Amino acid sequence: MDIYERSLQKHRETRGKIEVRSRMRLDSTDDLSLAYTPGVARPCEVIAENPGAAWDLTWKGRTVAVVSDGSAVLGLGDIGPMASLPVMEGKAALFHEFAGVDAVPVVLDERDPDRIVEIVKAIAPSYGGINLEDIAAPRCFEIEDKLQDIGIPVMHDDQHGTAIVLLAAVMNAARVQGRTLGQLSVVINGAGAAGRAIAFLLNCTEGNERCIPVGKLRICDSKGMLSPGRAGNDAIKEEIARKTNPDGETGDLRDALRGADVFIGVSRGNLLKAKDVKTMAADPIVFAMANPTPEIDPDEARAGGAAIVGTGRSDYPNQVNNVLAFPGLFRGALEARAKRFTEAMKFAAIDAIAGAVSEPTAGQVLPSAFDRSVAVAVANAVSEAARAGGDCHDRD
Amino acid sequence: MDIYERSLQKHRETRGKIEVRSRMRLDSTDDLSLAYTPGVARPCEVIAENPGAAWDLTWKGRTVAVVSDGSAVLGLGDIGPMASLPVMEGKAALFHEFAGVDAVPVVLDERDPDRIVEIVKAIAPSYGGINLEDIAAPRCFEIEDKLQDIGIPVMHDDQHGTAIVLLAAVMNAARVQGRTLGQLSVVINGAGAAGRAIAFLLNCTEGNERCIPVGKLRICDSKGMLSPGRAGNDAIKEEIARKTNPDGETGDLRDALRGADVFIGVSRGNLLKAKDVKTMAADPIVFAMANPTPEIDPDEARAGGAAIVGTGRSDYPNQVNNVLAFPGLFRGALEARAKRFTEAMKFAAIDAIAGAVSEPTAGQVLPSAFDRSVAVAVANAVSEAARAGGDCHDRD
Repeated sequence: MDIYERSLQKHRETRGKIEVRSRMRLDSTDDLSLAYTPGVARPCEVIAENPGAAWDLTWKGRTVAVVSDGSAVLGLGDIGPMASLPVMEGKAALFHEFAGVDAVPVVLDERDPDRIVEIVKAIAPSYGGINLEDIAAPRCFEIEDKLQDIGIPVMHDDQHGTAIVLLAAVMNAARVQGRTLGQLSVVINGAGAAGRAIAFLLNCTEGNERCIPVGKLRICDSKGMLSPGRAGNDAIKEEIARKTNPDGETGDLRDALRGADVFIGVSRGNLLKAKDVKTMAADPIVFAMANPTPEIDPDEARAGGAAIVGTGRSDYPNQVNNVLAFPGLFRGALEARAKRFTEAMKFAAIDAIAGAVSEPTAGQVLPSAFDRSVAVAVANAVSEAARAGGDCHDRD
Repeated sequence: MDIYERSLQKHRETRGKIEVRSRMRLDSTDDLSLAYTPGVARPCEVIAENPGAAWDLTWKGRTVAVVSDGSAVLGLGDIGPMASLPVMEGKAALFHEFAGVDAVPVVLDERDPDRIVEIVKAIAPSYGGINLEDIAAPRCFEIEDKLQDIGIPVMHDDQHGTAIVLLAAVMNAARVQGRTLGQLSVVINGAGAAGRAIAFLLNCTEGNERCIPVGKLRICDSKGMLSPGRAGNDAIKEEIARKTNPDGETGDLRDALRGADVFIGVSRGNLLKAKDVKTMAADPIVFAMANPTPEIDPDEARAGGAAIVGTGRSDYPNQVNNVLAFPGLFRGALEARAKRFTEAMKFAAIDAIAGAVSEPTAGQVLPSAFDRSVAVAVANAVSEAARAGGDCHDRD
């Protein structure tokens, strides 16, 4: 059986991947009186007086909702909420296994962004954080943006999780080559969820604590390089274009690649060949993260002269896997009782992931996805950054 | 320390009463490929083709959401969603411990009934059933009513859980006395969530498969007996009045009690004395379920001549405890993949609970709340009734 049929069989056996358990025994009248009525009235009253106590007295302080409308699921696209449940359960299982975070899937039979915002606001008291997942662009940007002030951290992982791990990889790749990011000319292909988040963490951050300025940054979509005033630009593409390409350079992906040091693909498979890589600067860095088929096959990239190659796949070196970021990010945010994710928290995660490889090499710029120490390091760094920023709920 | 402080301490120690765990190991690339990408794409596709497969392939088929707006919590009243979390977690813990049902609290920062309906509809794909809890009347009726066609069973437990256990108790009390319910004159005091549900299961069921006709039924609220056209009747009170009291008898609770066989209190504490019970018929049955203080103290009721006395409390005999009903009710509905709760399912639960006491006595008309076989019996009976009714999702 192939991996797909084995997965189906496994799902049938387990009837889903997560389960809920009681933490208190309920074998006697006394047990019931402690866990439920009448004793439970006291923790209720304490929370009514001081909402911050919910982080101590309920699951809130350790629980994240994985929220999706099922509109952009893996490579499957718009399969709807119920069919996306196995993915959200998988994410919840990863949260638990990698960071001890309790996570529950909440799939939504709703597509209107404003209504999704209202629903997430309404259910927020149950959770300590919201992981938005597999929501189609551009809806995902609007929804995430409008949920930043609900008092718990909200992050669309397809944007920021990918961006954070990728930037840790690029930082270590530069380190391997003895270069700084400021010396690099970078091309991002793909201006969807991940592409935009990567662009914002590089040269486009505004009003935030920090960003990574690279020497040159061009972002391409299916119509070529983003440039100010280009026909069909949405508001965010226009903003990115103005900030990264104010002089209005135009051209297609191949034009952008010529002389570039770094290619970051968050687009679709089989776009590039060795000859395209040969047009890049010496010893180029290639991250081809389209799944399951990368923008360029890693062997082909190396044949074109690429010095460091990464993909989104587990069967090649340098896998850019979100699991290096999201468990620790939310764990750290929960520990700090953060009200939101800040840029400082994201950069703390980038540094922690990059720092988890003590001696990066061309074949290993990222830690293994199974290195359980990464989530701990990320959580500690994120929690510290959140507390330093001060935008956290008080403790008792 | 009293039970309240001990409960607070216990909640601090456990940081909430439920937790989420992974059912699959995630220690290798192969594990990840089965639980998450790429393998997970296959169960997603199967559900997209056939939504019924979600009951087999995800947690949906064993998971219930415990939904509350925190507007009518225990004896605490309107404490809001976050402060109600300990109660909803307690309920979730009971679901797991008593019926192996996975349950999660979803507390809602929303009060508009139509919006609550929209939110519950939107989150429904994640769950196999919805337990509405501690929502104030009359909002609770409207919300439950409007959620009956969402494709999974929805029940407001404060109404039906209480009504089901109480009716099992009344049936067994009549059995102890060798009487049929048709011979009994019954007074319900309280026309809130539980009072209305009890009334509907007795003489007011319409268009349903079954009801229990008692000889005479009077329902009182704080203004006295419900009668048709009474000032201040809402639509449901008017409906109940027309069906149970078409001749328009009027009077207060004491008038109603005179000569009655059964008193059912779902109102507030300390309303009655021994002398009131003395006005009832011979060997009266008294269920005084106000919590924590019953409508009449059990000793006082017996001093007034009550032959059988029950309360909502665990420290007196004949405790009417919802835990005898809701775990098995939802377990049975999930097993049958029922689309809704029908009257037939509720009566199956009543019979199963009553039947769980082989030889009822005045001191034991209900099984112990800790008799784990009750939930199994209820689940089997409810599941069978659901399948017989036919309103269930198909199996593969």
